[in-house]
Amino acid sequence: MGINSNRVEHYSVFVYRLRKALLQKLRHRLSEVFFPDDPLHGFKNQSRFRKFILALQFFFPIFDWAPNYSLTLLRSDVVSGLTIASLAIPQGISYAKLANLPPIIGLYSSFVPPLVYSVLGSSKHLAVGPVSIASLVMGTMLNEAVPYNKDKVLYLKLAFTATFFAGVFQAALGLLRLGFVIDFLSKATLLGFMGGAAVIVSLQQLKGLLGITHFTTKMQIIPVLSSAINHRNEWSWQTYVMGFCFLAFLLTTRHVGMKKPKLFWVSAAAPLVSVILSTLIVTLFRSKLHGIATIGHLDKGLNPPSSNMLYFHGHFLGVAIKTGIITGILSLTEGIAVGRTFASLNDYQVDGNKEMLAIGLMNMAGSCSSCYVTTGSFSRSAVNANAGAKTVVSNIIMASTVLVTLLFLMPLFHYTPNLILAAIIITAVIGLIDYQSAIKLWKVDKLDFVACLSSFFGVLMISVPIGLAIAVGVSVFKILLHVTRPNTGVLGNIPGTQIYQNVNRYKEAKRIPCFVILGIDAPIYFANSTYLQERILRWIREEEEWLAANNGSSLKCVVIDMTAVTGIDTSGLAMVKELKKMLEKRSLQLVLANPAGSVMEKLHQSNILESFGLEGVYLTVDEAVADISSSWKA
Amino acid sequence: MGINSNRVEHYSVFVYRLRKALLQKLRHRLSEVFFPDDPLHGFKNQSRFRKFILALQFFFPIFDWAPNYSLTLLRSDVVSGLTIASLAIPQGISYAKLANLPPIIGLYSSFVPPLVYSVLGSSKHLAVGPVSIASLVMGTMLNEAVPYNKDKVLYLKLAFTATFFAGVFQAALGLLRLGFVIDFLSKATLLGFMGGAAVIVSLQQLKGLLGITHFTTKMQIIPVLSSAINHRNEWSWQTYVMGFCFLAFLLTTRHVGMKKPKLFWVSAAAPLVSVILSTLIVTLFRSKLHGIATIGHLDKGLNPPSSNMLYFHGHFLGVAIKTGIITGILSLTEGIAVGRTFASLNDYQVDGNKEMLAIGLMNMAGSCSSCYVTTGSFSRSAVNANAGAKTVVSNIIMASTVLVTLLFLMPLFHYTPNLILAAIIITAVIGLIDYQSAIKLWKVDKLDFVACLSSFFGVLMISVPIGLAIAVGVSVFKILLHVTRPNTGVLGNIPGTQIYQNVNRYKEAKRIPCFVILGIDAPIYFANSTYLQERILRWIREEEEWLAANNGSSLKCVVIDMTAVTGIDTSGLAMVKELKKMLEKRSLQLVLANPAGSVMEKLHQSNILESFGLEGVYLTVDEAVADISSSWKA
Repeated sequence: MGINSNRVEHYSVFVYRLRKALLQKLRHRLSEVFFPDDPLHGFKNQSRFRKFILALQFFFPIFDWAPNYSLTLLRSDVVSGLTIASLAIPQGISYAKLANLPPIIGLYSSFVPPLVYSVLGSSKHLAVGPVSIASLVMGTMLNEAVPYNKDKVLYLKLAFTATFFAGVFQAALGLLRLGFVIDFLSKATLLGFMGGAAVIVSLQQLKGLLGITHFTTKMQIIPVLSSAINHRNEWSWQTYVMGFCFLAFLLTTRHVGMKKPKLFWVSAAAPLVSVILSTLIVTLFRSKLHGIATIGHLDKGLNPPSSNMLYFHGHFLGVAIKTGIITGILSLTEGIAVGRTFASLNDYQVDGNKEMLAIGLMNMAGSCSSCYVTTGSFSRSAVNANAGAKTVVSNIIMASTVLVTLLFLMPLFHYTPNLILAAIIITAVIGLIDYQSAIKLWKVDKLDFVACLSSFFGVLMISVPIGLAIAVGVSVFKILLHVTRPNTGVLGNIPGTQIYQNVNRYKEAKRIPCFVILGIDAPIYFANSTYLQERILRWIREEEEWLAANNGSSLKCVVIDMTAVTGIDTSGLAMVKELKKMLEKRSLQLVLANPAGSVMEKLHQSNILESFGLEGVYLTVDEAVADISSSWKA
Repeated sequence: MGINSNRVEHYSVFVYRLRKALLQKLRHRLSEVFFPDDPLHGFKNQSRFRKFILALQFFFPIFDWAPNYSLTLLRSDVVSGLTIASLAIPQGISYAKLANLPPIIGLYSSFVPPLVYSVLGSSKHLAVGPVSIASLVMGTMLNEAVPYNKDKVLYLKLAFTATFFAGVFQAALGLLRLGFVIDFLSKATLLGFMGGAAVIVSLQQLKGLLGITHFTTKMQIIPVLSSAINHRNEWSWQTYVMGFCFLAFLLTTRHVGMKKPKLFWVSAAAPLVSVILSTLIVTLFRSKLHGIATIGHLDKGLNPPSSNMLYFHGHFLGVAIKTGIITGILSLTEGIAVGRTFASLNDYQVDGNKEMLAIGLMNMAGSCSSCYVTTGSFSRSAVNANAGAKTVVSNIIMASTVLVTLLFLMPLFHYTPNLILAAIIITAVIGLIDYQSAIKLWKVDKLDFVACLSSFFGVLMISVPIGLAIAVGVSVFKILLHVTRPNTGVLGNIPGTQIYQNVNRYKEAKRIPCFVILGIDAPIYFANSTYLQERILRWIREEEEWLAANNGSSLKCVVIDMTAVTGIDTSGLAMVKELKKMLEKRSLQLVLANPAGSVMEKLHQSNILESFGLEGVYLTVDEAVADISSSWKA
């Protein structure tokens, strides 16, 4: 086995490593933090010209796929592009309503951003446009500051400004490679948040579905529900009969599309069919159905420039920035998640940081051309992928269809009833209420379930930003709790092996006489050093009491298995030093087994290693036990 | 070796463990979070009467030591009690000044709280009374809301109210066993914070030392310095000559006391000697020294009740609560740290949560008897221990001495000059500027150093609460960074052993052909699951590239060593599932080695374990490599 030679060599290797320059270590650490995926590895050992081409393809993925584009690909992309356009037009109008914006803004937003994304984006299946959650959040947050029906121009200005800041924030995250910020919205948090938002959005649609004119603008569940009930006198029977019929139709087609993926086109075509049908009905029976509210006049024409409407000073700038950051991070989370999902289904990779940059630039461009926040939509991307999209060209086809609509078809929407927009929104968001996943969370991870519930009720009862803040807080608290109260346990040897395992988990594991071997499952940090000290002393006390009660032999040595101690800070170092001193006073030997390299370095730098000496640190628990036992016998 | 039998047994043990009831697990987890020290272990297997006595001793430690109290102990306690009283009287007056309170409040605060503590407290060496940091923070925070020289009565009311809330907060932390909250103020943070506060406090004393009458009440370094310079015309030469002489005297005695611990009485007696000397000088040469400001008239008599001055409604309640919580947590941190330090030096233990309750009740009692925030003072406790204190009786002796002072000696302080209070404060706080420890932090842990610097400059440049918030933020960020960007590395076998170690750290470690063995040094959580997936894929890509460039053999199996993966959540589980799927598509086998029990349970509950099967999980890396290699050969 060569126990001692191993240990000495271990020590010498470690001393050698200490000579590594500080700068080199810092460089390594920073590259791990910011460039974990080594994005430039393709550039190594290439000619200068090749590097230029690679850089061009890196920043503009269009140069990557365009040269190999073929007619076969185009055919698939045209089919899928037309399919998502049929979904994007009614959804665009509906989501703009959700954000309290004129319906046409929703169509503008389905034209410019998809074109920008098709040049910069690296996902092949992302269908770009407005999405429900970001629309809802923008609508709520801006409306709280400036009620949209009081000052429509200011509201519009703030919406474009928020979109601009959302873009700046997203692009900055991508440029600074801080993509991990969105990881702090865990899946559990998002599940609860989206569920809560979907409930609120659906209830808000009672306004359109029942035909209420004086509806609350608040976003909590109680005012929304009571507003729907208190305005019973405004309910219009033509509206709710027609509304619930179309809602039933849309939900049925959605169900069919989900059960039989081959019939995805049923659910994809249903919204447009409903819009056409309902518009026809209202136009034909106009005289009898005057109780039904319609969209009204819409201007023909392309996106007007809106850079002159950006609002960079004054009282509401703070609201715009805050709204921009929150809608920016939410839409980014959705866009990146959608991109990653379809990339992994189709066996390619998307670079999160590059995608952020693309989405950010697309929103900045959007804010200057009368668009509000856009990102990759989950529902439309799924339809896109099902319809056989092969490249981002399907986005270009979609944008072209929207262009034709904007130029020629706008008057057709004059008699489109609002109730159909409400039904489309409900159908789109209802899938976000995913109680089955919530039940699964409860089964697997109780704390994740708590995070999910708190964001759900936070959004439902208080407000969108506070709901999100609570949920992120719970998630961070979970990490801190894991570090603050780590698992510790007594290890025993599994007979016939050199393996040591927790004696509570493995019945075969046998304790070693005169030793107590402790495993610590966390870095030793300021947040847990006091706890660990108390806990280790308690393990020792319990072991001594047990020994005294049973065979009367005495404890001589405490071995701490440091395998899972992945880091240590100055408070942790002080704790180890203190513990060593305390145990020495009680004539107990303290020994460390398998400290990681970084922990070893810090023990050395703080001169604590010296007090342990060569006999105090071993490569494995087994080695420590064997060596110390044999020294007692000698 | 019995590789397979081990693995099967491992699995069966684990399935057995799953049957443990949820409630039992929750109970275990909660007891680990709130009762890690098992405070009631002494109560087990005792008669009912004995349990009653133990409970009495548990809540009132005085019943523990009082029955064994002896004359020898009393003699030591009287000597040490008188010594700390000689320090407490001048410091009490000075610190009250620091909190912008009438000097007599400082003496009141050195009378009631020590008596309460002597009944409830479990530390034998803690010397209780006002302390510099809490006084400074209270003075700053309240003065920002209500300038003390504008409305003295309101200011006093707020001070007592803040003290009350500090006590409530402290007692609540103790009762709810949330003592770990103070652990979030790491040693590095406190070092920076105290250093910054000490610099500010010392500079503020220029007012007293130079005799300036119109001094700024701001607490940032720049306004304080410029105020001292701009009011040059108010400098009084009698004041600063005398002030700097006494300051030099106090600093010299402090230095002597530190160099030769046996001469601790020199530094302990110096403040009282200076007060007596300076008062004598000013009284004798009153006519010539009229430029020197003195304390003025002080009322004789005991603490008046102040419960009627508590302020529970109105505009400033928020300020009082905030001040209470911040001074409460700061004074708690100092008190607990001092208690723990002297306990470990003298080989007994203090229970953090019980101490919090004692300090909290003492402050609540104090707020009703004209005292402001008190706790265990580091400097006075050191003197107490050096002077031979054996029990909390030394606090009773100190309180009795203060009582005599309050009843009979108050008129003697009429001509005590303010400059001497300034000199005493500077001498007391100068030791908090501990640049040597800061240098050590830089050497051992760069991020701890950053936390230290940010709290230092935060306090110096912005404000006390923001400086603290920044520092806590940096500390929490450090934990999050550790989890968000964990260490990963390729492991290799150390020839002749079953040990696998990082190949970059251990030159002897040899890679195994056709395998890539990865070690992950963190729990797999939402905050790092995306990163880990990218990083693992990069490790595999790099290994494949290396193999392709070197010997042309191909990679067949990826082993993940889960030893240091101390936890997993739903995002992490999804990542493992996804990774397995991605690698299967590339015909690579994914195998887990040594997952901890809790990780194993979650893999099982989420049905991911099934996809791995019995051949996908091993007890050690060595076992996995041996078993898979032999299956290839067969």
